[in-house]
Amino acid sequence: MKDRFDIFPVGVIRKQNGDVCIEIFEKYGDALLGLDDFSHITVCYWFHENDNHEKRNTLQVHPRKDKNNPLRGVFATHSPLRPNLIAISICKILSIKDTTIFIEKIDALDGSPIIDIKCFIPSRALTSEIKLPDWV
Amino acid sequence: MKDRFDIFPVGVIRKQNGDVCIEIFEKYGDALLGLDDFSHITVCYWFHENDNHEKRNTLQVHPRKDKNNPLRGVFATHSPLRPNLIAISICKILSIKDTTIFIEKIDALDGSPIIDIKCFIPSRALTSEIKLPDWV
Repeated sequence: MKDRFDIFPVGVIRKQNGDVCIEIFEKYGDALLGLDDFSHITVCYWFHENDNHEKRNTLQVHPRKDKNNPLRGVFATHSPLRPNLIAISICKILSIKDTTIFIEKIDALDGSPIIDIKCFIPSRALTSEIKLPDWV
Repeated sequence: MKDRFDIFPVGVIRKQNGDVCIEIFEKYGDALLGLDDFSHITVCYWFHENDNHEKRNTLQVHPRKDKNNPLRGVFATHSPLRPNLIAISICKILSIKDTTIFIEKIDALDGSPIIDIKCFIPSRALTSEIKLPDWV
């Protein structure tokens, strides 16, 4: 197995004047064809503010930065501190204009790099019983 | 914005003798603490078999490789051909033994590199109305 893979940003998150949008770079515009058939997208972005050795090597955290929550492995959380800084968010599409996708909201910083967009299709996993810990 | 980010594999998918499991590399073992409180995980893996210039520059496909489906942008599909080869799958945990997570199933090749694991928490997006095209 290769010991490293390359990720290239394909767009950027913009939060300005109350609008929240995803600006896809021109060269990837053709990849948006048909996206307007969907109501929601899965947005993958990069926790770019944490892209340093220390934060990428933090393997345990108190979920939601609350010391009252038990220390947990980052793979058992959605923490922005993790070995690979992949963030996943399901967002409602408001409109798409050229290569800009206006979305209802996203819990991301203005300027966050977009690394993938996928149409959102509900998972069959969701029909089975879901178990969650107390801190969620 | 940086023009490239580094992804490091944190484990590997194994499919052998009917078992399906995720072997997390020893050095990331501490990141699994508390994962057994969840019934499901979101698994991010890498479509490593497509990691070449041609496939990463394919921006439109016929969904599900069916020519009867209309040509669509890869961001409007879950195609394994996409600029960044990130695959996302929600999987049911059967058991966790040391750094091996046994799962019910995953639509991935034996040997696929794992790039992230997140606990699965249902999205609020799922309570609203979902729109999907005919090909889904």
